[in-house]
Amino acid sequence: MKDLDRGKVYLIGAGPGDPDLLTIKALRALGAADVVVYDRLVSPEIMALVPADVERIDVGKIPGHHRIQQPEINALLIELALGGRCVARLKGGDPLIFGRGSEEAADLARAGIASEYIPGITAAQGAAASTGVPLTHRGLATGVHYITGHLAKDASLDLDWARLADPESTLVIYMGSATIGDIAKNLMRAGMSADTPAMAVAAATTPRERHVVSNLRSISGRVETEKLPAPVLFVVGRVVSLYDTLPAGLPEAAYA
Amino acid sequence: MKDLDRGKVYLIGAGPGDPDLLTIKALRALGAADVVVYDRLVSPEIMALVPADVERIDVGKIPGHHRIQQPEINALLIELALGGRCVARLKGGDPLIFGRGSEEAADLARAGIASEYIPGITAAQGAAASTGVPLTHRGLATGVHYITGHLAKDASLDLDWARLADPESTLVIYMGSATIGDIAKNLMRAGMSADTPAMAVAAATTPRERHVVSNLRSISGRVETEKLPAPVLFVVGRVVSLYDTLPAGLPEAAYA
Repeated sequence: MKDLDRGKVYLIGAGPGDPDLLTIKALRALGAADVVVYDRLVSPEIMALVPADVERIDVGKIPGHHRIQQPEINALLIELALGGRCVARLKGGDPLIFGRGSEEAADLARAGIASEYIPGITAAQGAAASTGVPLTHRGLATGVHYITGHLAKDASLDLDWARLADPESTLVIYMGSATIGDIAKNLMRAGMSADTPAMAVAAATTPRERHVVSNLRSISGRVETEKLPAPVLFVVGRVVSLYDTLPAGLPEAAYA
Repeated sequence: MKDLDRGKVYLIGAGPGDPDLLTIKALRALGAADVVVYDRLVSPEIMALVPADVERIDVGKIPGHHRIQQPEINALLIELALGGRCVARLKGGDPLIFGRGSEEAADLARAGIASEYIPGITAAQGAAASTGVPLTHRGLATGVHYITGHLAKDASLDLDWARLADPESTLVIYMGSATIGDIAKNLMRAGMSADTPAMAVAAATTPRERHVVSNLRSISGRVETEKLPAPVLFVVGRVVSLYDTLPAGLPEAAYA
């Protein structure tokens, strides 16, 4: 990457939280931008890397329960770019995995503004590396499926539980804190064994990381008991059985 | 990350190919290791970052069609670590997504050797960022599913096509060059529309990147006609329809 362009928006994945897990390209963009527009899911450790003279705009705030809506964010990005600024739009994880990066890029394009994606380590990968639970593993998981628990709250959207209740694949649920109980119930009703290993990981790869390892039957109750703070990522599948066979030192863990 | 430990193996994701998409942690590990053990899928641009005085061992070679087998690689890693070396085991993409990182870590643990995972941007994320095709997008894909085409070649393993033929989710197929024809046929037989958009991306994020955009019916033939060199990643689903709405400049593309 050469110097950044002015009047352009860089849609940047900040990764799971550990600043060392930023890509080189993302770090360079943060150092060269005029303004950083960031989300709730970007860790304070990563925001600490933004040079002091760079403007920061927090669009993840919930001022008086009014969360900034996506169209307002898009309008802000357009305004900043039209003003000739070089804009770093920083998102937790990867901008193209539950990151709405492509919605923002589409609106920018309609306004005639160039954008560019810079990928980031997604939370599932961060959680896998720090817990030692692989996302795929021969004999345990032939693939991995990422879904979001947010959808389950939306009455108009129903997930296809029969498809998701797959013992051969790892299922990763993003943003599922509020809905994991329902999700687990639906998966069991669709035929997934209640004994399927399940893990919850809060604040993966940060100093605040915590795990709960349990099974599909108990994971929701365990997370509540342990008061895991959001955002929590859930990993469901046989790969979770590899958790305590790990060689590396682990952060605080709570076993079921 | 402080200095690396000697007698330890770092299982490192090299990302999709662009050296700027390495994580800061991975780059630092490559600069501090005594020996780098690397795969076919690690790009020459990334190997160029390894300091000249660091030993490199290529375990991806196919000398006289004899590919080095996994147990030999594991034995090599153990031997190097027991010799007190700091070992960087470098893999394309992410070590815990079709990377066999957890198989190597398990063997190392059995030999009493410490290891640590360093995640990498997986090929699907690299291809998404460079083609502008998101892996999830509201209204087009509620999730994303990674599988490997390698399994389809193994007679003893059969994928659950009914589960995979999901119009609501993006399907990404790794290492599918040899089997994409069979995979597409199976998906269509399981009910997935032949008109489902499908894209093939070779060498994502490198100067050799090439795309083919087509549909499930034609993708296999198109990849053959265009002679896309392996490794090729396939993305199947409605998100691929966003391909030519992209704002950013794109590398060479071949449309169906």
